[in-house]
Amino acid sequence: MSGSASARGGHSGLADAVGERRRGGDVRRLDPLFGPRGIAVIGASRDPGKLGAVMARSLSRFPGTVVGVNSRDVDPAAGRFASVADAATASPDPIDLAVLCVPAAVSAQALTEAGEAGVRAALVCSGGYAEAGGPGVGHQRDLVAAARDHGIALLGPNTSGFLVPTRSLTATFVPAAGAVPAGPVAVVAASGGVNHALAFLLGEADIGVSLAVGLGNAVDVTAADVLTHLVDDGTTRAVALHVESVPDGPALAAAVRALTARVPVVALVVGRNDVAEFARSHTGALATSWRTTRAALRAAGAVLVDDERELIDAVTALSALRLPPVADPGVGVVTAQAGPALLHVDGLRGRGVAIPQLTEDARMAVAELLPPLTYQANPVDTGRPGPGFDRLLATVSADPGVDLLSVYALAEPDALDLPAAVESARAAGAGPLVVALGGPPEQVTPQRQALRKLGVPALDGPAALTVAVSALVEDARARGRRSDEAPRPPVLVSVPRRDLDEDEAKALLGELGIPTPPRRACADRAAAHRALAELPGPLAVKLLDATVTHKSDVGGVHLGIRDAAGLDAALDALEGIGATRFLVEPMAPPGVDLIVGASRDPVFGPIVLVGLGGVVAEALADVAVAPAPLGPEAAGALADELSGRALLDGFRGGPVADRTALGSALAALGDLLVSHPEIEDVEINPLRVTADGLLALDAVLTVGEEARP
Amino acid sequence: MSGSASARGGHSGLADAVGERRRGGDVRRLDPLFGPRGIAVIGASRDPGKLGAVMARSLSRFPGTVVGVNSRDVDPAAGRFASVADAATASPDPIDLAVLCVPAAVSAQALTEAGEAGVRAALVCSGGYAEAGGPGVGHQRDLVAAARDHGIALLGPNTSGFLVPTRSLTATFVPAAGAVPAGPVAVVAASGGVNHALAFLLGEADIGVSLAVGLGNAVDVTAADVLTHLVDDGTTRAVALHVESVPDGPALAAAVRALTARVPVVALVVGRNDVAEFARSHTGALATSWRTTRAALRAAGAVLVDDERELIDAVTALSALRLPPVADPGVGVVTAQAGPALLHVDGLRGRGVAIPQLTEDARMAVAELLPPLTYQANPVDTGRPGPGFDRLLATVSADPGVDLLSVYALAEPDALDLPAAVESARAAGAGPLVVALGGPPEQVTPQRQALRKLGVPALDGPAALTVAVSALVEDARARGRRSDEAPRPPVLVSVPRRDLDEDEAKALLGELGIPTPPRRACADRAAAHRALAELPGPLAVKLLDATVTHKSDVGGVHLGIRDAAGLDAALDALEGIGATRFLVEPMAPPGVDLIVGASRDPVFGPIVLVGLGGVVAEALADVAVAPAPLGPEAAGALADELSGRALLDGFRGGPVADRTALGSALAALGDLLVSHPEIEDVEINPLRVTADGLLALDAVLTVGEEARP
Repeated sequence: MSGSASARGGHSGLADAVGERRRGGDVRRLDPLFGPRGIAVIGASRDPGKLGAVMARSLSRFPGTVVGVNSRDVDPAAGRFASVADAATASPDPIDLAVLCVPAAVSAQALTEAGEAGVRAALVCSGGYAEAGGPGVGHQRDLVAAARDHGIALLGPNTSGFLVPTRSLTATFVPAAGAVPAGPVAVVAASGGVNHALAFLLGEADIGVSLAVGLGNAVDVTAADVLTHLVDDGTTRAVALHVESVPDGPALAAAVRALTARVPVVALVVGRNDVAEFARSHTGALATSWRTTRAALRAAGAVLVDDERELIDAVTALSALRLPPVADPGVGVVTAQAGPALLHVDGLRGRGVAIPQLTEDARMAVAELLPPLTYQANPVDTGRPGPGFDRLLATVSADPGVDLLSVYALAEPDALDLPAAVESARAAGAGPLVVALGGPPEQVTPQRQALRKLGVPALDGPAALTVAVSALVEDARARGRRSDEAPRPPVLVSVPRRDLDEDEAKALLGELGIPTPPRRACADRAAAHRALAELPGPLAVKLLDATVTHKSDVGGVHLGIRDAAGLDAALDALEGIGATRFLVEPMAPPGVDLIVGASRDPVFGPIVLVGLGGVVAEALADVAVAPAPLGPEAAGALADELSGRALLDGFRGGPVADRTALGSALAALGDLLVSHPEIEDVEINPLRVTADGLLALDAVLTVGEEARP
Repeated sequence: MSGSASARGGHSGLADAVGERRRGGDVRRLDPLFGPRGIAVIGASRDPGKLGAVMARSLSRFPGTVVGVNSRDVDPAAGRFASVADAATASPDPIDLAVLCVPAAVSAQALTEAGEAGVRAALVCSGGYAEAGGPGVGHQRDLVAAARDHGIALLGPNTSGFLVPTRSLTATFVPAAGAVPAGPVAVVAASGGVNHALAFLLGEADIGVSLAVGLGNAVDVTAADVLTHLVDDGTTRAVALHVESVPDGPALAAAVRALTARVPVVALVVGRNDVAEFARSHTGALATSWRTTRAALRAAGAVLVDDERELIDAVTALSALRLPPVADPGVGVVTAQAGPALLHVDGLRGRGVAIPQLTEDARMAVAELLPPLTYQANPVDTGRPGPGFDRLLATVSADPGVDLLSVYALAEPDALDLPAAVESARAAGAGPLVVALGGPPEQVTPQRQALRKLGVPALDGPAALTVAVSALVEDARARGRRSDEAPRPPVLVSVPRRDLDEDEAKALLGELGIPTPPRRACADRAAAHRALAELPGPLAVKLLDATVTHKSDVGGVHLGIRDAAGLDAALDALEGIGATRFLVEPMAPPGVDLIVGASRDPVFGPIVLVGLGGVVAEALADVAVAPAPLGPEAAGALADELSGRALLDGFRGGPVADRTALGSALAALGDLLVSHPEIEDVEINPLRVTADGLLALDAVLTVGEEARP
């Protein structure tokens, strides 16, 4: 499984095993679906309310061949044939795509006939398949088998279909979707409804779509397949990805990774709050599927957003403009009015976007262009724009700390022609910039259009501008991270085919380079007393038993043992709960406790996790996850995603966490799971941040059931 | 101060004292500003680039008298006079409003002349006043004095002005603002730029404004004044309030409170992240001004939003519809497509909106209207809408748990005429509903307009619908809380005019009804040993000294003392750090630690605060604040705003916090500060939640410097 995560596109052993997938990773496989030469509507109807008739209306603008198939209503002159084979014979173009408008019970048979007549792709919009339960499950199985037998790329069932405006191809049951203009954004939506909603919003935003597809039951064509198809699609400049659930995590991650090298992907993952409820009812489960899906998409290079409006803003920006890969791009903010700028800067700061102070040179240049009392350090506020706005843009853009210029202005035709100012600034060497423009529609609509023609994303207000800038920055950061990535060598350690006790688990951590306190595993009381004599300072004395994972809960941990009497009291108590072996360690110095670990996500495979220790952090579910393998730098940065990250930076006189050591430890845990499929999970709880470095105070390693003898 | 918070509108002693304010609370005072009969532009100009000429263009559509004043360019036939007095004599209408387009240095003189000629209101858009520093400070002081001397309501300076579309009155330096249509929303913005941006966005959203005003330096007319004016304004059905800083908290809170009884107010407060940085650099300051401003506005009845787009969505909903006051309205979600519905429901859950399961009766009725395999429990998903959608709406609306219906649909003219379905559902008794409609603009624009004519808020997508529904729910909850409010009697206790030691502070808590452990204040070692004999279980022995507020930090706390030897060791150590008095208490049972307190916000006066105890919670700044006085129910509910609230509800086998007792304790602390102006703040840290109830383990009370002898 984990190996396939690095392969482009593609299928996984697991997915094949469960019979859901077939060949993959072929960037041309969906050409017959999205670029057919001829189309057959199977189940054509003259009843305008029937799906067959609605589909024919949707397809009426398609410039290639569109034929109907209905054995009970044949009229070749009107393009209605008894079979796909008949239609194919009569058609000037090969019939590549079949649109099935027949009941679920007969769809497999219809698809088989189509396949035999040379059809290579099919769309099934109607429901009545697995989502309906009962006989629908069998209908879906038969449909998938028919598609596989004939090498047909099958979209659906239970979806709204797709549209390709540049080809005047509207293959959805909503004919009005044909009105969505062609544009640079591809929509890849889990849901047919969301696909239409996004396509219409992109139309309303004057952006348009290159392709918009709803996946529905996704029995064959998945999001990963469509993303793989888009790698070679010259018309798509940004992808809006909507995710509900993921059948095959590594395939999706690989497809996003391959695509984002060329085209930015913005992802909206549904289920934050369902999942949070689930997490609350399962207090042990700090990492959740929603969180993991987001982490995996982000690691693969996608930009994450929180709702469909942010999705539109982000692709509006990224379809016009992409920054070069940078670890942390700096944004220069230039505004014509201070109030909206404050809203924008407040939002950018909340999203962790760097707004660097301008250099002395830039400030002096700005000071020559603006009246003395405006704010000039970044954000740069003109108070009110006037002549010289173009030079201001060029000056701020030229600052070495500024990778992107963000501009807000209200349209004031008397004071500022923003498109002209941008064009002039460009001529003077200004770099990438993004704009939000407020004002009356009759003024701002043509100005936004003019700006877009210049390749400048044009939004409508501070909030949209904030999302757009953040998306550009996140995309640049994602590619900046990628340049740090190097293959991780396998970690080969000896792991018994059973759960490890704390001593064994800590020995294994030692092999991974993760520090642990000195310790003695004691088979009897005499050994414990020897350990007391040998080890420094007050001691911790613990039950040593691989079958007990929550030692504290059963009274299996005694702290602050200083002498023989104290040790005997502790050993008595431990024997009282059935202990036969003991672990003796010096007490650790105080510090900040983390939980770190690696586990095996059922969808995405190995992931690493870091969170703050303690019950408060647990109640807040303040954890960050990332898919493994990952490098130590990315792993160390994971801690910066924690809400309580201030605790790792010397909060209230506490220790400062060594991010390099933390990153190495997390990366090593991830490598361990990648290299050892027999390990189910490993958790260090706590990993203490001390003034002298990290120290793993307890560790649990679980071997998967199937790996046990 | 606190008394004025309950007065309608108005001024405060503090504000008068600092010379910033004057008469207030008069709902008619701004009539000459926003409803003038005649207007004089002082500093009229024929140079089209000059402010005087731009203003004249803006005002050109005003149907009343508009005259110019310019002593150097007099032409009475063209409406240009040498003075306001001359203009007033010649004008058929009284000149109520002067728009000053003269340099700051001469504006006070111009305003004085205008006042003497009978002008009752003035607008000063230009800058060069206090915000510019230097001589501008004096110009502003003179301007304010002139306004006060002549009873002139002065808007500005340093603002974009205002517009009243129903009166064709555009008093801004952006003539295009005259294109913003009349509508039901009043914009009250701290910033002139934000005022214009919001007005244009409301125009673009096809909502329009009743009044849109930018306050600028707000030297006379404040947000509180405009809100007070709107109480009697029949055309305003919702208010969009933008807040940057608050000069007079109680006046603002009182104005919001008075207005929200009749008209909903939605507030956007800037400064979350600036303030968060401030809070991080001052680790002791968990409560922040941004947080307090939001809490005060919310307590006064405003609905809070996070950006200007949410502001537009919220007033779109609230200007069309207001729910009756309800403690927690239930929302029924009916959708035509499942995917967008999931996005919407995910968003509503994240905002804590109740989506109750339908009753058995409603479910049976729904089951008769829908195919069997759709989701029918709430949300109710039709899969795809068809005939009977109107009956579905009426049925779900009739469920006793449903106070508001939220509907998402894609426009499908073949399948659904949503305005007709809504009208029919209304006829069948359906209650309040809000709609989002996606689709091609040529279909959805007229449908959204038709829905608005029916009084139904119509949004454009799931995200906007989520914000709209949340706003309707929050507004209903705010008025639901209000019905619980009763006057709080004063709390009169004896407080020495100095800081209290822990024993005295705990005695005072006892008077407030807040439980504390049994304790002995010991003036010598013998007393401590008597306490050891008298008190049960292991003891805590602490330094007792009012001058030491962080006892633990100096080694002033010894825990788990069980015997005379242990006590002597602890007393030795305490004497070693200079202790002469000791506090001896039994150790408290384990539990969850809270920090609760009350302090005096410099803007809003007494506030109460609750947060989780411990360094993790502190690093996360997980606290909730509310203005005092407040009732125990509202105070208890404050704990539900904490991110870590799960810890108060038996998390991981922990205790369940008694919300009634917690609310009473918080309310009592608030009452204490309201009744005792000499107390600066009081903090209980920790207030422990135990299985046996709350227990205040430490308390600090600080008396204000000015109250000390």
